[in-house]
Amino acid sequence: MENIFTDEYFMKKALQEAEVAFEKGEIPVGAIIVIDNKVIARSHNLTELLNDVTAHAEMQSITAAANFLGGKYLTGCTLYVTLEPCQMCAGALYWSQISKIVFGASDENRGFEKMGTQLHPKTIVVRGVMANEASSLMRQFFIQRRK
Amino acid sequence: MENIFTDEYFMKKALQEAEVAFEKGEIPVGAIIVIDNKVIARSHNLTELLNDVTAHAEMQSITAAANFLGGKYLTGCTLYVTLEPCQMCAGALYWSQISKIVFGASDENRGFEKMGTQLHPKTIVVRGVMANEASSLMRQFFIQRRK
Repeated sequence: MENIFTDEYFMKKALQEAEVAFEKGEIPVGAIIVIDNKVIARSHNLTELLNDVTAHAEMQSITAAANFLGGKYLTGCTLYVTLEPCQMCAGALYWSQISKIVFGASDENRGFEKMGTQLHPKTIVVRGVMANEASSLMRQFFIQRRK
Repeated sequence: MENIFTDEYFMKKALQEAEVAFEKGEIPVGAIIVIDNKVIARSHNLTELLNDVTAHAEMQSITAAANFLGGKYLTGCTLYVTLEPCQMCAGALYWSQISKIVFGASDENRGFEKMGTQLHPKTIVVRGVMANEASSLMRQFFIQRRK
Protein backbone atom coordinates (compact mmCIF):
# COMPACT_ATOMS: atom_id res chain seq x y z
CA MET A 1 0.00 0.00 0.00
CA GLU A 2 1.19 3.45 -0.89
CA ASN A 3 2.18 5.75 1.95
CA ILE A 4 -0.13 8.76 1.86
CA PHE A 5 1.93 10.64 4.45
CA THR A 6 4.36 12.26 2.03
CA ASP A 7 6.03 15.64 2.43
CA GLU A 8 3.51 16.98 -0.11
CA TYR A 9 0.64 15.67 2.00
CA PHE A 10 1.75 17.70 5.00
CA MET A 11 2.91 20.72 3.02
CA LYS A 12 -0.65 21.05 1.68
CA LYS A 13 -1.79 21.57 5.27
CA ALA A 14 0.87 24.25 5.79
CA LEU A 15 -0.35 25.90 2.56
CA GLN A 16 -3.90 25.93 3.92
CA GLU A 17 -2.56 27.83 6.94
CA ALA A 18 -0.79 30.27 4.61
CA GLU A 19 -4.12 30.87 2.87
CA VAL A 20 -5.73 31.75 6.19
CA ALA A 21 -2.94 34.30 6.76
CA PHE A 22 -3.61 35.72 3.27
CA GLU A 23 -7.30 36.19 4.07
CA LYS A 24 -6.33 38.11 7.22
CA GLY A 25 -4.02 40.45 5.29
CA GLU A 26 -0.90 38.85 6.73
CA ILE A 27 2.12 37.88 4.62
CA PRO A 28 0.95 34.36 3.68
CA VAL A 29 3.20 31.91 5.48
CA GLY A 30 1.86 28.77 7.14
CA ALA A 31 3.46 26.06 9.25
CA ILE A 32 2.60 22.77 10.86
CA ILE A 33 4.56 20.39 13.10
CA VAL A 34 4.16 16.65 12.76
CA ILE A 35 5.25 13.72 14.92
CA ASP A 36 4.61 10.10 13.89
CA ASN A 37 2.42 11.35 11.03
CA LYS A 38 0.24 13.28 13.47
CA VAL A 39 -0.17 17.06 13.24
CA ILE A 40 0.50 18.53 16.70
CA ALA A 41 0.71 22.24 15.80
CA ARG A 42 -0.62 24.47 13.04
CA SER A 43 -0.17 28.19 12.68
CA HIS A 44 0.16 31.08 10.31
CA ASN A 45 1.92 34.39 10.33
CA LEU A 46 0.25 36.92 12.66
CA THR A 47 2.78 39.74 12.85
CA GLU A 48 0.32 42.43 11.73
CA LEU A 49 -2.65 41.33 13.81
CA LEU A 50 -0.53 40.95 16.96
CA ASN A 51 1.80 43.89 16.22
CA ASP A 52 4.64 41.53 17.00
CA VAL A 53 7.67 40.72 14.85
CA THR A 54 8.10 37.45 16.75
CA ALA A 55 4.68 36.09 15.66
CA HIS A 56 5.99 34.18 12.64
CA ALA A 57 4.19 30.93 11.80
CA GLU A 58 7.20 28.80 12.81
CA MET A 59 7.57 30.45 16.25
CA GLN A 60 3.95 29.81 17.10
CA SER A 61 4.15 26.19 15.98
CA ILE A 62 7.33 25.59 18.00
CA THR A 63 5.62 26.90 21.14
CA ALA A 64 2.43 24.94 20.45
CA ALA A 65 4.24 21.66 19.71
CA ALA A 66 6.36 21.92 22.88
CA ASN A 67 3.21 22.63 24.83
CA PHE A 68 1.53 19.55 23.33
CA LEU A 69 4.55 17.35 24.04
CA GLY A 70 5.12 18.74 27.54
CA GLY A 71 8.80 19.29 26.82
CA LYS A 72 10.78 21.94 25.03
CA TYR A 73 12.73 19.68 22.64
CA LEU A 74 11.18 18.70 19.33
CA THR A 75 13.28 15.64 18.54
CA GLY A 76 11.27 13.27 16.37
CA CYS A 77 9.25 16.17 14.96
CA THR A 78 9.12 17.64 11.46
CA LEU A 79 8.27 21.27 10.68
CA TYR A 80 6.54 21.96 7.38
CA VAL A 81 6.65 25.63 6.45
CA THR A 82 5.67 27.26 3.17
CA LEU A 83 8.58 29.74 3.12
CA GLU A 84 12.21 29.26 4.12
CA PRO A 85 12.63 30.25 7.80
CA CYS A 86 14.35 33.53 8.70
CA GLN A 87 17.26 33.96 11.15
CA MET A 88 14.93 34.22 14.14
CA CYS A 89 12.94 31.10 13.32
CA ALA A 90 16.03 29.10 12.37
CA GLY A 91 17.59 30.21 15.67
CA ALA A 92 14.52 28.94 17.55
CA LEU A 93 14.62 25.68 15.56
CA TYR A 94 18.28 25.32 16.53
CA TRP A 95 17.35 25.43 20.22
CA SER A 96 14.42 23.04 19.68
CA GLN A 97 16.68 20.32 18.21
CA ILE A 98 13.89 19.53 15.75
CA SER A 99 14.66 16.47 13.61
CA LYS A 100 13.52 17.68 10.20
CA ILE A 101 12.58 20.93 8.46
CA VAL A 102 10.72 20.87 5.15
CA PHE A 103 10.23 24.21 3.47
CA GLY A 104 8.51 25.34 0.27
CA ALA A 105 9.77 28.50 -1.40
CA SER A 106 13.28 29.79 -0.77
CA ASP A 107 13.73 33.32 0.59
CA GLU A 108 16.72 34.61 -1.31
CA ASN A 109 16.89 37.81 0.73
CA ARG A 110 16.12 36.92 4.30
CA GLY A 111 16.18 33.14 4.43
CA PHE A 112 18.41 31.47 7.00
CA GLU A 113 20.53 29.69 4.40
CA LYS A 114 21.69 32.92 2.77
CA MET A 115 22.04 34.61 6.18
CA GLY A 116 24.14 31.71 7.49
CA THR A 117 22.05 30.86 10.54
CA GLN A 118 23.14 27.60 12.13
CA LEU A 119 20.70 24.75 12.76
CA HIS A 120 21.21 21.88 15.21
CA PRO A 121 23.69 19.40 13.68
CA LYS A 122 21.08 16.62 13.78
CA THR A 123 18.41 18.58 11.87
CA ILE A 124 17.71 17.42 8.30
CA VAL A 125 16.54 20.05 5.79
CA VAL A 126 14.38 19.37 2.73
CA ARG A 127 13.88 22.28 0.31
CA GLY A 128 11.43 23.23 -2.42
CA VAL A 129 8.40 21.06 -1.55
CA MET A 130 5.43 22.67 -3.35
CA ALA A 131 7.57 25.76 -3.78
CA ASN A 132 5.55 27.00 -6.78
CA GLU A 133 2.31 27.01 -4.80
CA ALA A 134 3.94 28.87 -1.90
CA SER A 135 5.62 31.43 -4.19
CA SER A 136 2.46 31.98 -6.15
CA LEU A 137 0.54 32.78 -2.96
CA MET A 138 3.22 35.27 -1.90
CA ARG A 139 3.20 36.92 -5.34
CA GLN A 140 -0.59 37.28 -5.32
CA PHE A 141 -0.41 38.82 -1.87
CA PHE A 142 2.09 41.49 -2.82
CA ILE A 143 0.28 42.28 -6.09
CA GLN A 144 -2.97 42.73 -4.18
CA ARG A 145 -1.29 44.86 -1.50
CA ARG A 146 0.12 47.25 -4.09
CA LYS A 147 -3.37 47.93 -5.45
CA MET B 1 23.63 68.04 36.76
CA GLU B 2 24.87 64.56 36.13
CA ASN B 3 22.73 62.28 33.96
CA ILE B 4 21.68 59.34 36.11
CA PHE B 5 20.28 57.45 33.12
CA THR B 6 23.49 55.73 32.11
CA ASP B 7 23.79 52.30 30.50
CA GLU B 8 24.85 50.99 33.93
CA TYR B 9 21.70 52.42 35.49
CA PHE B 10 19.49 50.42 33.14
CA MET B 11 21.70 47.33 33.10
CA LYS B 12 21.23 47.07 36.87
CA LYS B 13 17.52 46.65 36.23
CA ALA B 14 18.20 43.92 33.69
CA LEU B 15 20.45 42.23 36.27
CA GLN B 16 17.61 42.33 38.80
CA GLU B 17 15.50 40.44 36.27
CA ALA B 18 18.31 37.92 35.82
CA GLU B 19 18.31 37.38 39.59
CA VAL B 20 14.58 36.60 39.49
CA ALA B 21 15.29 33.99 36.80
CA PHE B 22 18.04 32.53 39.01
CA GLU B 23 15.62 32.18 41.92
CA LYS B 24 13.20 30.28 39.66
CA GLY B 25 15.90 27.85 38.55
CA GLU B 26 16.13 29.40 35.08
CA ILE B 27 19.42 30.23 33.36
CA PRO B 28 19.80 33.77 34.77
CA VAL B 29 19.32 36.18 31.89
CA GLY B 30 17.32 39.38 32.27
CA ALA B 31 16.28 42.08 29.84
CA ILE B 32 14.55 45.42 29.78
CA ILE B 33 13.54 47.78 26.97
CA VAL B 34 13.75 51.53 27.40
CA ILE B 35 12.41 54.46 25.40
CA ASP B 36 13.12 58.08 26.37
CA ASN B 37 14.63 56.84 29.66
CA LYS B 38 11.41 55.03 30.50
CA VAL B 39 11.32 51.26 31.04
CA ILE B 40 8.51 49.83 28.88
CA ALA B 41 9.30 46.11 29.18
CA ARG B 42 11.07 43.86 31.65
CA SER B 43 11.49 40.11 31.49
CA HIS B 44 13.66 37.17 32.35
CA ASN B 45 14.36 33.80 30.83
CA LEU B 46 11.44 31.37 31.29
CA THR B 47 12.37 28.48 29.00
CA GLU B 48 12.14 25.85 31.75
CA LEU B 49 8.96 27.06 33.40
CA LEU B 50 7.16 27.44 30.08
CA ASN B 51 8.82 24.43 28.38
CA ASP B 52 9.51 26.72 25.48
CA VAL B 53 12.82 27.40 23.76
CA THR B 54 11.42 30.69 22.46
CA ALA B 55 10.86 32.13 25.97
CA HIS B 56 14.20 33.95 26.16
CA ALA B 57 14.20 37.24 28.07
CA GLU B 58 14.74 39.29 24.90
CA MET B 59 11.82 37.70 23.02
CA GLN B 60 9.42 38.46 25.83
CA SER B 61 10.62 42.05 26.10
CA ILE B 62 10.30 42.59 22.34
CA THR B 63 6.70 41.38 22.43
CA ALA B 64 5.89 43.43 25.55
CA ALA B 65 7.47 46.64 24.23
CA ALA B 66 5.64 46.37 20.89
CA ASN B 67 2.43 45.79 22.81
CA PHE B 68 3.09 48.88 24.93
CA LEU B 69 3.92 51.02 21.88
CA GLY B 70 1.03 49.68 19.80
CA GLY B 71 3.33 48.99 16.86
CA LYS B 72 5.77 46.25 15.99
CA TYR B 73 8.84 48.42 15.30
CA LEU B 74 11.10 49.40 18.19
CA THR B 75 12.84 52.37 16.64
CA GLY B 76 13.91 54.77 19.39
CA CYS B 77 14.16 51.89 21.89
CA THR B 78 17.17 50.37 23.63
CA LEU B 79 17.36 46.76 24.80
CA TYR B 80 19.46 46.05 27.89
CA VAL B 81 20.24 42.37 28.29
CA THR B 82 22.65 40.72 30.70
CA LEU B 83 23.95 38.15 28.17
CA GLU B 84 24.77 38.56 24.48
CA PRO B 85 21.66 37.60 22.44
CA CYS B 86 21.56 34.29 20.54
CA GLN B 87 20.72 33.81 16.84
CA MET B 88 16.97 33.68 17.53
CA CYS B 89 16.89 36.84 19.64
CA ALA B 90 19.21 38.73 17.29
CA GLY B 91 16.96 37.64 14.41
CA ALA B 92 13.92 39.02 16.25
CA LEU B 93 15.83 42.25 17.01
CA TYR B 94 16.66 42.50 13.29
CA TRP B 95 12.95 42.49 12.43
CA SER B 96 12.15 44.95 15.24
CA GLN B 97 14.58 47.58 13.86
CA ILE B 98 15.50 48.42 17.46
CA SER B 99 17.83 51.42 17.71
CA LYS B 100 20.31 50.18 20.32
CA ILE B 101 21.31 46.93 22.00
CA VAL B 102 23.40 46.99 25.19
CA PHE B 103 24.57 43.64 26.46
CA GLY B 104 26.58 42.51 29.47
CA ALA B 105 28.55 39.28 29.18
CA SER B 106 29.56 37.90 25.79
CA ASP B 107 28.47 34.39 24.86
CA GLU B 108 31.50 32.97 23.08
CA ASN B 109 29.67 29.80 22.05
CA ARG B 110 26.17 30.77 21.07
CA GLY B 111 26.20 34.57 20.92
CA PHE B 112 24.99 36.20 17.70
CA GLU B 113 28.33 37.88 17.00
CA LYS B 114 30.22 34.58 16.78
CA MET B 115 27.30 32.95 14.92
CA GLY B 116 27.20 35.81 12.41
CA THR B 117 23.55 36.78 12.82
CA GLN B 118 22.73 40.03 11.06
CA LEU B 119 21.13 42.96 12.89
CA HIS B 120 19.28 45.84 11.27
CA PRO B 121 21.85 48.21 9.71
CA LYS B 122 20.65 51.08 11.94
CA THR B 123 21.04 49.17 15.22
CA ILE B 124 23.92 50.29 17.46
CA VAL B 125 25.54 47.66 19.71
CA VAL B 126 27.28 48.33 23.03
CA ARG B 127 29.10 45.39 24.64
CA GLY B 128 30.37 44.48 28.09
CA VAL B 129 28.28 46.75 30.33
CA MET B 130 28.44 45.19 33.83
CA ALA B 131 29.73 42.02 32.18
CA ASN B 132 31.41 40.81 35.37
CA GLU B 133 28.18 40.92 37.36
CA ALA B 134 26.30 39.06 34.60
CA SER B 135 29.03 36.42 34.20
CA SER B 136 29.30 35.92 37.93
CA LEU B 137 25.55 35.24 38.18
CA MET B 138 25.78 32.68 35.34
CA ARG B 139 28.78 30.99 36.97
CA GLN B 140 27.00 30.74 40.34
CA PHE B 141 23.97 29.25 38.62
CA PHE B 142 25.90 26.49 36.88
CA ILE B 143 27.94 25.70 40.02
CA GLN B 144 24.72 25.37 42.01
CA ARG B 145 23.07 23.24 39.32
CA ARG B 146 25.96 20.76 39.28
CA LYS B 147 25.56 20.17 43.02
